[in-house]
Amino acid sequence: MKSRRDFLQKLTASMVTLPFMPLDSLAAPADNLQLEHADETPYAGPVLRVALMGLGGYANRVADAMRACKKAKLVGLVTGTPAKKNDWQTRFYIPEKNCYNYSDFDKMANNPDIDAVYVTTPNGLHHDQVIRVANAGKHVICEKPMAINAKEGQEMVDICKKKNVKLLVGYRMHLEPKTLEIIRMRKAGEFGKVQFFQGLSGFTIGDPTQWRLNKQLAGGGAMMDIGIYSINGARYMLGEDPIWVTAQETKTNPVKFAVGVDETIQFQLGFPSGAVASCLSTYNMNFLDRFFLTGEKGFAELNPSTGYGPIMGRTHKGELAFRHVTHQTVQMEEFSDIILNGKQPTVPVDGEEGVKDLKIIDAIYQAVKEGKKVNIKW
Amino acid sequence: MKSRRDFLQKLTASMVTLPFMPLDSLAAPADNLQLEHADETPYAGPVLRVALMGLGGYANRVADAMRACKKAKLVGLVTGTPAKKNDWQTRFYIPEKNCYNYSDFDKMANNPDIDAVYVTTPNGLHHDQVIRVANAGKHVICEKPMAINAKEGQEMVDICKKKNVKLLVGYRMHLEPKTLEIIRMRKAGEFGKVQFFQGLSGFTIGDPTQWRLNKQLAGGGAMMDIGIYSINGARYMLGEDPIWVTAQETKTNPVKFAVGVDETIQFQLGFPSGAVASCLSTYNMNFLDRFFLTGEKGFAELNPSTGYGPIMGRTHKGELAFRHVTHQTVQMEEFSDIILNGKQPTVPVDGEEGVKDLKIIDAIYQAVKEGKKVNIKW
Repeated sequence: MKSRRDFLQKLTASMVTLPFMPLDSLAAPADNLQLEHADETPYAGPVLRVALMGLGGYANRVADAMRACKKAKLVGLVTGTPAKKNDWQTRFYIPEKNCYNYSDFDKMANNPDIDAVYVTTPNGLHHDQVIRVANAGKHVICEKPMAINAKEGQEMVDICKKKNVKLLVGYRMHLEPKTLEIIRMRKAGEFGKVQFFQGLSGFTIGDPTQWRLNKQLAGGGAMMDIGIYSINGARYMLGEDPIWVTAQETKTNPVKFAVGVDETIQFQLGFPSGAVASCLSTYNMNFLDRFFLTGEKGFAELNPSTGYGPIMGRTHKGELAFRHVTHQTVQMEEFSDIILNGKQPTVPVDGEEGVKDLKIIDAIYQAVKEGKKVNIKW
Repeated sequence: MKSRRDFLQKLTASMVTLPFMPLDSLAAPADNLQLEHADETPYAGPVLRVALMGLGGYANRVADAMRACKKAKLVGLVTGTPAKKNDWQTRFYIPEKNCYNYSDFDKMANNPDIDAVYVTTPNGLHHDQVIRVANAGKHVICEKPMAINAKEGQEMVDICKKKNVKLLVGYRMHLEPKTLEIIRMRKAGEFGKVQFFQGLSGFTIGDPTQWRLNKQLAGGGAMMDIGIYSINGARYMLGEDPIWVTAQETKTNPVKFAVGVDETIQFQLGFPSGAVASCLSTYNMNFLDRFFLTGEKGFAELNPSTGYGPIMGRTHKGELAFRHVTHQTVQMEEFSDIILNGKQPTVPVDGEEGVKDLKIIDAIYQAVKEGKKVNIKW
């Protein structure tokens, strides 16, 4: 069975066979990157103790990546499948008292050994589950998209605020070194006035029975899952929020992609500065994981731009030769600092940021439906 | 003064400093390319005797390139500037009897030493001038865009047909080796079903007083001049004609880009197969000369894609390592074969092809105006 993870890995592999930079650059020393987990010095600071909810493919990836974390530790789980529970307990040494199912995880309120829950269940379940976690008094990390529309997302933000727990979204690219280097260059004016962003985000999705193709569980189609990367990219690369959206949907396979499950959407964004973005979101094309940015004085490109890595890129000044680090490891280290130490990341990863993306997705779906430009008010 | 040519050259130069292929590939032997002018064997076939009309920057480029032609020869000129006439006569050995101005070039009808006229005047003048050339019984090569709308273009086609002269459009990229290799691969099914084309065509235009920024002479703005390359690319790369268009205009400098002169337009095309294209046309951004194509089994990209060269590209199978040849030399050699020997090029370069592009431009401008999808009937 073809899984989404297989596709993201294949996509990366196919790109690696034809890199636009010498392969040995990948082994270049990471001069600009000082990650604590990469050195051998002991860490004596606070550790974020995390329970994972929803033990699918992505949770496995996060759990494996967390083995390299110093500031975050996998200590608990929530699953509805007893066999998964046993398997995970063995593989990750999870004590019985930190294991929950979907009926009883509210009892976590009485468990002092869990600080935060990382929700990696289907999109349509995030809203209710995140609210239950917040009500149990735990910090929440919610996989993207944080919900299936901005209204749901805002409710989640409001309740987490009320319960005084932090809500972060699993935006691993917001912490990726080459991405951050381009953002640093943009802020330093090295591109001059930035005028255009292009994001192409897509892959050919496999198994037609998976939850990602179920409107109720996914909340939509490719846009929710992969198109959101281009929305993220447009915002963090340009450093602005869009004020208008246009969008065009194309569906070549209405059996696989039912009503409400988008196969391919082209969308365009306009920004207050006059910059524009042209993006593509699709579940039915290959070789699409590309960002490109151009300004008056320079350009940047990433290809692949959002896969699990290595991300590869260059600017008008040359190759971006940072060493690859596992995104989910970096993410969990940073999330620990954000939750436990109040660190402010360069690009926000909080619930408000997630709601902004959902507001844009809402506008894209509306623009598709109405066939005309939709203005976005912030 | 910054000219358009300067910009196209700078664009190419800036790309060459950061190629995505080893530079030595540019020196690779041109195994797949056998151009007659590149060898030393004598040519004894027919020669197309050409007069150039409009001795601006581009005419100079064409004239220089024609020095390397065996099948085409520059023999005449049409200019309204006596100083240019004298200069050109000296530089290109043009006999007095083959020199005309804009009042008397109809007399070419009585000149048996000229076979064809290459019209490189501003777009808005093409219609009347091409018709006068056709009425003088000469074949016509018209620089792109062939006219300022499809109605004008169709009239030109009809009159040339009636007068039994050939009408070609100066589509140099339709004959470019790397471009043709991608088209060959697409036809051979090497990309599988092709699903997406992206064309980014633009540069920052200089001198605000030039005719290209004059609505009456240019017929529009960036779309007419540089956006048309993305339209061409979408059609010849996908091998289909679009059936719908959406478009969004952005204007950040309404002084430099007056009413009717487009600065930046994003446009999207839908094709009968379900393939889509996302394109950008602009006179106000740098580093934009990129084509990308993806299909079920492979991809292709050109960057730069339409500058004066060298064009650089790769596919999923590797680099496109054809030797660079001057586009205008290739074009004039091929045009000679088409006009004198009835050769059928892989991608059409005739007036009908030019009208198709204008029909799409008409639809893009209409889509901008109406703010909604415009269907195109063929």
